[in-house]
Amino acid sequence: MEFNYVIDTFFALFAMTLIIFMVPGFAMLEAGLVRTKNVTSVLTVNVMIYAVASLAFLLVGYELAFGSWDHQNGMSKWAFFLFQMAFVGKVVNIMSGGVSERSRILPLALFTIAVGAFIYPLIVNLTWGANFLEGTMLDISGLSDLAGSTVIHSTGGWALLAAILIMGPRRGRYIDGKVKVIPASNIPLVTLGALLLWIGWFGFNGGSVGSISSKENADAVALTIMNTNTAGLAGAIAGWLLTYFRYKKFDITVILNGALGGLVAITAGPDQYGIHLPILIGFIGGALVVWAVPFFDKLRMDDPVGALSVHLVNGIWGTLAVGIFVDNVSFMTQLKGVVVVGAIVFPISFITIYVINKIFALRANDEEQLEGIDAIECGIESYPEFKRSI
Amino acid sequence: MEFNYVIDTFFALFAMTLIIFMVPGFAMLEAGLVRTKNVTSVLTVNVMIYAVASLAFLLVGYELAFGSWDHQNGMSKWAFFLFQMAFVGKVVNIMSGGVSERSRILPLALFTIAVGAFIYPLIVNLTWGANFLEGTMLDISGLSDLAGSTVIHSTGGWALLAAILIMGPRRGRYIDGKVKVIPASNIPLVTLGALLLWIGWFGFNGGSVGSISSKENADAVALTIMNTNTAGLAGAIAGWLLTYFRYKKFDITVILNGALGGLVAITAGPDQYGIHLPILIGFIGGALVVWAVPFFDKLRMDDPVGALSVHLVNGIWGTLAVGIFVDNVSFMTQLKGVVVVGAIVFPISFITIYVINKIFALRANDEEQLEGIDAIECGIESYPEFKRSI
Amino acid sequence: MEFNYVIDTFFALFAMTLIIFMVPGFAMLEAGLVRTKNVTSVLTVNVMIYAVASLAFLLVGYELAFGSWDHQNGMSKWAFFLFQMAFVGKVVNIMSGGVSERSRILPLALFTIAVGAFIYPLIVNLTWGANFLEGTMLDISGLSDLAGSTVIHSTGGWALLAAILIMGPRRGRYIDGKVKVIPASNIPLVTLGALLLWIGWFGFNGGSVGSISSKENADAVALTIMNTNTAGLAGAIAGWLLTYFRYKKFDITVILNGALGGLVAITAGPDQYGIHLPILIGFIGGALVVWAVPFFDKLRMDDPVGALSVHLVNGIWGTLAVGIFVDNVSFMTQLKGVVVVGAIVFPISFITIYVINKIFALRANDEEQLEGIDAIECGIESYPEFKRSI
Repeated sequence: MEFNYVIDTFFALFAMTLIIFMVPGFAMLEAGLVRTKNVTSVLTVNVMIYAVASLAFLLVGYELAFGSWDHQNGMSKWAFFLFQMAFVGKVVNIMSGGVSERSRILPLALFTIAVGAFIYPLIVNLTWGANFLEGTMLDISGLSDLAGSTVIHSTGGWALLAAILIMGPRRGRYIDGKVKVIPASNIPLVTLGALLLWIGWFGFNGGSVGSISSKENADAVALTIMNTNTAGLAGAIAGWLLTYFRYKKFDITVILNGALGGLVAITAGPDQYGIHLPILIGFIGGALVVWAVPFFDKLRMDDPVGALSVHLVNGIWGTLAVGIFVDNVSFMTQLKGVVVVGAIVFPISFITIYVINKIFALRANDEEQLEGIDAIECGIESYPEFKRSI
Repeated sequence: MEFNYVIDTFFALFAMTLIIFMVPGFAMLEAGLVRTKNVTSVLTVNVMIYAVASLAFLLVGYELAFGSWDHQNGMSKWAFFLFQMAFVGKVVNIMSGGVSERSRILPLALFTIAVGAFIYPLIVNLTWGANFLEGTMLDISGLSDLAGSTVIHSTGGWALLAAILIMGPRRGRYIDGKVKVIPASNIPLVTLGALLLWIGWFGFNGGSVGSISSKENADAVALTIMNTNTAGLAGAIAGWLLTYFRYKKFDITVILNGALGGLVAITAGPDQYGIHLPILIGFIGGALVVWAVPFFDKLRMDDPVGALSVHLVNGIWGTLAVGIFVDNVSFMTQLKGVVVVGAIVFPISFITIYVINKIFALRANDEEQLEGIDAIECGIESYPEFKRSI
Repeated sequence: MEFNYVIDTFFALFAMTLIIFMVPGFAMLEAGLVRTKNVTSVLTVNVMIYAVASLAFLLVGYELAFGSWDHQNGMSKWAFFLFQMAFVGKVVNIMSGGVSERSRILPLALFTIAVGAFIYPLIVNLTWGANFLEGTMLDISGLSDLAGSTVIHSTGGWALLAAILIMGPRRGRYIDGKVKVIPASNIPLVTLGALLLWIGWFGFNGGSVGSISSKENADAVALTIMNTNTAGLAGAIAGWLLTYFRYKKFDITVILNGALGGLVAITAGPDQYGIHLPILIGFIGGALVVWAVPFFDKLRMDDPVGALSVHLVNGIWGTLAVGIFVDNVSFMTQLKGVVVVGAIVFPISFITIYVINKIFALRANDEEQLEGIDAIECGIESYPEFKRSI
């Protein structure tokens, strides 16, 4: 019906636009979290990822994922593409954020092409798309993952895990068995970025319902956005309380990462819960961030923005939570989805990153890190007029 | 009808999203206006307010305000909730902004719970909601206040007035009978924040029409947004001209606060004016900010962001303006609404803040203020790498 | 039909809101690109432009452009006005950005009134509006320019060209025949601003389709937004590759200006191309920026933000591109449109700016520039607490 087609096209464009706010969102968050000497390169990487991943998806990945441009007819196919395209850069953002302050840009661009053209489309193919493994042992199309706790966040997280294992920590992060705290350089940017991500999530999850044009779907979209927001609120409060009771201080980076953890955790099933369960799921999501960040540091897995904790840990938690709390969803199906996606993404990412690192030196060496990636790769200081105390 | 239900749900979600941009809006505005040593704590407070006030409203306040979750059926009840929830943090933002640089975070969180769960829902109950005082002397349900010049802005303003009276000025603000100018630390953030608030206002006021799904309502929504914007434009120009003619300088903080003053002033009746009257109402709103800021300083009421002038003064002016300029609205009804809301909110806020301050020390003492709230409460510098000249 | 009226009103309000994000977009971009000593004045100018140009358009320009307030009935006339009003400030932004760091605010405000009330409405009248030259030799109503490659971007560009010729370069920009590089002061703000402009472009171009309420129009809107985005992606990549292959460095300001160049270039016909041609058009757009920036410097035409290259060069390229690539569009009609608009806007702007500069000193003199426009015009430092190394 024309009414549904028009409304659902409009709604997809609205949702897509919100997701695009995540481009400045990730850029500001990461630019605020890294040191001044690496800010320009982090921003360059974020813009590069949006451009390269999106074009790779347009030219190659989209058809790999969905089989054809004409696989649905509920809305304009261009709107459907735009909504899907808005996702792809996020997967790389998760990985690039976690290896910032020690990675070079051109090799990252090569990995971005790999993700946008092949790795992410492969996972979408198996879950939301054409499913070329239908009927095989690896068929995970039964996975209940509305907006990508697994498809987006774990995928990015597994790629990051591979990258961290290959690249090692930043120079000077772990000295004499101790973790050296490297403070965020610009807290307003961190806050702005995290809040833009939060808003983008309304489009991410709300749009993933796929249609708003019936009474039932309008309710599902509104509930989805409400539950998404609630989980973010609860995650922030978890980050706040758990840090405060331990240190008697309020750590805004933990609060914001807690919120993001809650948002990742709800992403698999925001349409399937009542309005109170997201408080629990988001709170646990935030708590997992609080616990996982020092845990990864104990393993000497250096992640300057906490992306493993936010995206991988909570991607898994969020996917399993649907199996735990929703009656007609099987926990084992959810677990299988988590495992299969990890078993595909981790080795492929590992090999790809390993080869790229060998040939093109993804990792900046210690001297380059000391001077700062901005000087090495960009020749442009982020704040050239301000005297630095560090 | 399904069409109306779908469109109005979608529109409420759109409007809600715009309002959520006010979260980074307030955060950036305040982070830019305060000194560097207080930036992290101001940002922490802003995120805390969104999380705590929204959850308190979800768990307690919403039903107090509207009587039940099923009090309307024109749109998805979840969308209606989200739109209403987006308002509640704003009330606390108004208060917290005006006492920034001298308040501690945990006591603020307690007051946030009080506002989100009880004080704001009480006022909504009397005006837009269930109205438990219907038929009594205090019945103000006849108040014409589309989007909250009184319900939101005055309410926040009265709470701020109480807080300022209890907490006194910042250390070093008034010395030997003179006002010491404390410059804003980051003008780009001030500008960004104010402009995000401006955009959020389109959702605030436009969404308050409640429906866009008929020709008549579509016109009302569009007129509302147009008039809202016009009042902001005129308020900015008032701030600009009045400052320029006096000092031959352009003061961007006054221009932006002038715009916000115009926006607050139009908020009671943007759907009820023609397209030219908002120029007058907004201009007066901006002028009131220009005049009220030094007036409050003369009274030694220290308000680092000008929130009393923007929100309380203009909340009153905007509410009365509807009574002055709109034919079928009684000035006395408007005045009664203003007075009753003040007579309820001010004493309740005063007692609540007084008790919180006594028990939990809302006010940071002079030594703490000298060191900066960031060091005391957060242990995180906002810009740790930049050398400071102050 | 009521359905179409409601949906198209809603969609116009959505598109308008996205365009208003260009107000902080331009403000942050320019505040990041100029030196710290000129940041406050650049921000003041941006807010002033929005206020003054919009009010001038409301009071005078809109009726000049469209003949009356009731010239269409497909949507709420207030929504139509808002959408059109959102454009007008952009024309002045293009001009003001290119003469930043050397212009005074009050004379700029006078020129803003001229553009908002007369110059821009005149061009709209000839192209999208009432067309008072219908049937004359200067009739350019056949021009195919969906969202203003010529009407907005070239118009702003011609005004800027006039301003640069009259005002000359910044003090110290060209010394002994060499171009002195003046680095951008805040790269995160540059990035944030450019990305907000990018998002605003979805509203700019998508909204210019004029209706989304039929299947055909929904497709046209979605295709328009998709192609708009694609051209931005390709422009960014052009800026990236062309700089990298020459200097082995990644220059984010070129990447972002490349994206903006691609976005300007697609603006004339995003609804008329398939999904691959925008890659070519945007890539050329980005390449033109890379080439034009040093070209204008060779001519000693000083443009701190690259606005001539982004808006004038690509405004022309984008308009001609429709004539080159779209079958039923005449290249000569496109060329005529470009020439006629230039032949009208350039001399009118030149005379207006010349007179304003003579009487009110638009150009800040060398001493004023040395001290910084902030100190001269605003008396407010942008970052007063940070020690400066320059």
